[in-house]
This record gives sequence, C-alpha cells and structure tokens, in this order.
Amino acid sequence: MRTLKTALVQHSHSPDRSANVAQSLDAIRQAAQSGAQLVVLSELHTSPYFCQVEDPRFCALAEPIPGPLTDVFSASARENKVVLVGSFFERRAAGLYHNTAVVFESDGSLAGQYRKMHIPDDPAYYEKFYFTPGDLGFHAIPTSVGKLGILICWDQWYPEAARLMALDGAEILIYPTAIGWNPAEDEAEKERQLDAWVTIQRSHAVANCLPVLSVNRIGFEPSPAGASGIQFWGHTFAAGTQGECLAQAGHKEAETLLVDLDLDRTEEVRRLWPFLRDRRIDAYGDLTKRFRDRKKKGSGFGVQ
Amino acid sequence: MRTLKTALVQHSHSPDRSANVAQSLDAIRQAAQSGAQLVVLSELHTSPYFCQVEDPRFCALAEPIPGPLTDVFSASARENKVVLVGSFFERRAAGLYHNTAVVFESDGSLAGQYRKMHIPDDPAYYEKFYFTPGDLGFHAIPTSVGKLGILICWDQWYPEAARLMALDGAEILIYPTAIGWNPAEDEAEKERQLDAWVTIQRSHAVANCLPVLSVNRIGFEPSPAGASGIQFWGHTFAAGTQGECLAQAGHKEAETLLVDLDLDRTEEVRRLWPFLRDRRIDAYGDLTKRFRDRKKKGSGFGVQ
Repeated sequence: MRTLKTALVQHSHSPDRSANVAQSLDAIRQAAQSGAQLVVLSELHTSPYFCQVEDPRFCALAEPIPGPLTDVFSASARENKVVLVGSFFERRAAGLYHNTAVVFESDGSLAGQYRKMHIPDDPAYYEKFYFTPGDLGFHAIPTSVGKLGILICWDQWYPEAARLMALDGAEILIYPTAIGWNPAEDEAEKERQLDAWVTIQRSHAVANCLPVLSVNRIGFEPSPAGASGIQFWGHTFAAGTQGECLAQAGHKEAETLLVDLDLDRTEEVRRLWPFLRDRRIDAYGDLTKRFRDRKKKGSGFGVQ
Repeated sequence: MRTLKTALVQHSHSPDRSANVAQSLDAIRQAAQSGAQLVVLSELHTSPYFCQVEDPRFCALAEPIPGPLTDVFSASARENKVVLVGSFFERRAAGLYHNTAVVFESDGSLAGQYRKMHIPDDPAYYEKFYFTPGDLGFHAIPTSVGKLGILICWDQWYPEAARLMALDGAEILIYPTAIGWNPAEDEAEKERQLDAWVTIQRSHAVANCLPVLSVNRIGFEPSPAGASGIQFWGHTFAAGTQGECLAQAGHKEAETLLVDLDLDRTEEVRRLWPFLRDRRIDAYGDLTKRFRDRKKKGSGFGVQ
C-alpha cells in the first residue's frame, strides 16, 4: 500500500502579512515533524480575502512568481523536506494578475503552478476585478509524491475541471479555497451552501476515483465596503477515492488535519467502477459550447 | 412559485411480467389521485434485472417502441393525465437492443425517448451483452410539465451527461436505476457504495442547479449463474437545486415518494451561483479525449 501522509492547514488570516506567513511556516514545520510529506495551505493565505471589495490599492499585495514571497515558501519546503501547495496573488505584469497556486518540490524547487481558471464574481467575491482567468489550462503537476491536480476554490463547482485533471493523470485533486457565509443569510441556506460545497467536491472523488483535499480558511472578515462581511466556514476536509470522508475540520478552530491517503486505492476502485472505460467521448462535443441554443427558424435568434 | 408534484415509484420486480406491470399501473393511478403530475418508474421495471447473466434467451423480453408494452403505459398516462417516465428493454431490430427510457405525455402520446448512453459491464451487471450504447445523444425531452433530462443508471456516474442535459435546457434530471449490493461485500464497502451513489447524483443537482430524481428498485434477486445475486438498495430520492435531500425512501419497502419540486428555484440559484456563466469552454476540448496521453518522444507509444 502506497500511503501518503498529507497535512491540510486551516487558519484565519489577518491584515498582518508577516503574521500570516509565520503561522503557515509554523504549521508546515509541525506537519513535517508529524511525518507529513505533502502540505496544503488555503487560498491566498498571506492576506485577508481582499476581494470583498473592488479596490485597485489591493493590487499592491500581488507578487511575482517566483519572487521574494514564494522564496520563503521554497525555503520552507526544502528545510522541512515536504511537497508544499501554496496559493498567491500573482503579479505577472503591470495590470495583469492571477490567482495562482504554486507547488514547491521538497528540494525547494518550483514543481509547477496553476492559475485559477474559473473566476467568480458575485457580491463579496469580486474576483473578476483582480484576477485574469488562468491561461495555463488544466494540467496535473508531477511531484515526488505523485501527480497533483491543483484547482482553486470556484473551480471546485466544475466537474469539467476535475475530469480534465483526472484525464491528465492526476493522482490527487487539491482545492485551496476561501469560501464562507454571508452572516445575514438564514441558517437553512447556510447549511445548504456548506453541504453543496462538500457534496460537489466529494463527487469529484467519486467520478474520478481520486482522493480530494480541500483546504479552506476560517474567521470572520469584515467588509471594507461596509457590507455584511464573510464568515469563512472552514470545514477543511479530505475525501477518499469513493468520496468517503477521511477527515474534516470544524468551522471555528485553526487546525491541521493529518490524513493518510492510500494512493493504490484508485487502481482498485477504477477496476470495480470503470467509469473512464465507458465515457461517451463521441457524444461530449457540446461540452465546449456555452449552451445548446435551439435555432429558431426565421427568428434571427438562437444561432449556435 | 411553479410547483410540480412528482411521484417516484420504488418496487421490487418478479419474473411475472403482468404482475410487474400491474403494480406499476396501480402506483401510477394512486400517485395521480394524490395529485402527481409527473410519475417516474425505475429501470427495466417490467422484469427482474436479467443482466446478472449473459443469456440470449433473455432477449425475448425485448419489445419494440412503440409497441404493445408501451401502449399499456401510454394508456395509463392518458387515463391518469400524468407525464410518465418508463424504462424498457427495446427491440429495435433482430440482434439490436437498447436500454431505453420513454416519456409519455399526459395525453398518452410519446413525448420522446432516451437510449442509455453509458453501458456498464461488471460482475452481475453484464449490460454490454444486451444493450447497444444509445445513439440518440443527450437531449432533454420537452413535455407539458417541463423539459426532462432523462438519463439511466450507469449514466449517473458521469457529470458530462448531466451537464449536457443542463446545457440542453433540462429543468429536471431524472435517473431510472437498478443498482444494489453484492451481499458478499463487507458492510463498510456497502455503505461507501450507497453513499457514493447518492453523492454523485446530488452533485449533478449542485453543478447544474437542477432538481434530481433518482428511482431505484428494491428486493433481492438471485443470480441465474449461481453467483451472489443482487440486493437492490432502494434509497429512491429527490434532491433540490442545491443538492439538498427533499425526500428519500428506505432500502426495503415498496413505496411511492411524493415530492413537490419548485421549478422556479433554478433561476434563483443560478443567479446566486452563476456556474454556467464561467465555464471555460475554451479549455474543455480534451473532455472529448479518452485520456490525455503524453507523447513519449521516440518511444512510439502515447500518441494522442
């Protein structure tokens, strides 16, 4: 059995960048001491979730990759001999920014990066203002602990993204995330949202027979715009290859989940449930359409 | 609020076809009397699940569509003024059979049919012997109660199928199903399988902001080949547009779930979670590949 010990780091994040970095470095060190070989941090873990408002000043938080900030995490990966998944606000050029995950090899080198492909934009999550949609596509990143299918937050709602990573040979699906409740929402709606979030990610495990790691932040962050703010809901979790819950954090406490993944289980489960064998690729062409509009004869509307 | 009362009919099925048909007709009548406007039967509800063994004699069960068997259900739909989803072993020509769902309009006419696209084949589910994979594609069927995205059993594991139905304008996803446990399996595995089955279907609701109806059979059916047989696990259920469970049957009792669907909720939820807005159709092309094989330079293997 090919076991991989993983660490999922759930924190809150303040406006003090050095404090955010320090708590991540501490968690990485402790995880490594506990035997973790792969450590995953949450989305944009060096700052508050600044996308609650559209303010060009926040673009000053962006950093080049590689750059001074990723150098710190490179060093941490090397010193602790872990493969590390970090998440950064990438400055690619003046006025060109991405929401980018970086995979650090255990020797400190950059194994690869993934630029968030699906960018949300809804009240309190104004990401389209900040982040240019990724242009690197969906590619699994080879590392010493396996091929990692890194996706980010909003990507988690798209089965297409998970599937493309699986088709690319990913052995684990990994979602750094920043998602929470609008505190003004009623309790039933909050519960539906959280449950939907867990369900859709567990389903990527099921559909692709792959383990899924999802790492979210906690804490209440007030809105700079005077809106309700966001209560980040935590619930960082690991699911096994049949979508079964292996471990789950709560919604309030900073904690690091240590989870053993059985990387041989995918082969077993895919023999039992050979979904990849039977995909109807001859009939999937319209997945690349926005919608299957009907041609309304003579109306002039509904062209494909 | 556009409410649709639906009925999900969960039964066991014996080798006595007329008894199977009679219990379906009874259930349809009772559901209509309770106000149901849409009634869904389970997969291949006129016979035991004959695919536990590969035996050409079972091909005698197949019927043309339309034909005497569907005429009976046409009449039932008309008499009870319900839209009805039935599931049949279709004889299209000598040696050419499909696993086909038929949608009957409330006036008894055939609204449309769907031929199961993904065909399973694993121990006790030897469907590739009997059923030619569907050649009608994934198309929602317009009816007087809305556009129905009918899919069948093994299709439920494929997010691609659900998405194509959503892109085709489906307002409800409907899965007639025949799935169960190998009684020889251990309890933990049984639980994982059932939970995976519920999770993947609820996830289609989440990903597409559509209600999902899944109708399974119950009962133990022995294997004609002397294998373990199948304990069909029931758990017929309805999920709402955020994947929330609206109603679920048990695993032992024949029952009809009556569930009110709010068909206006999709529009609301899709405004909240505009997943369709952000699909990266420019980067989904490889979904029509079997696998993203790597070209190994000079090896002669791994061509695309």
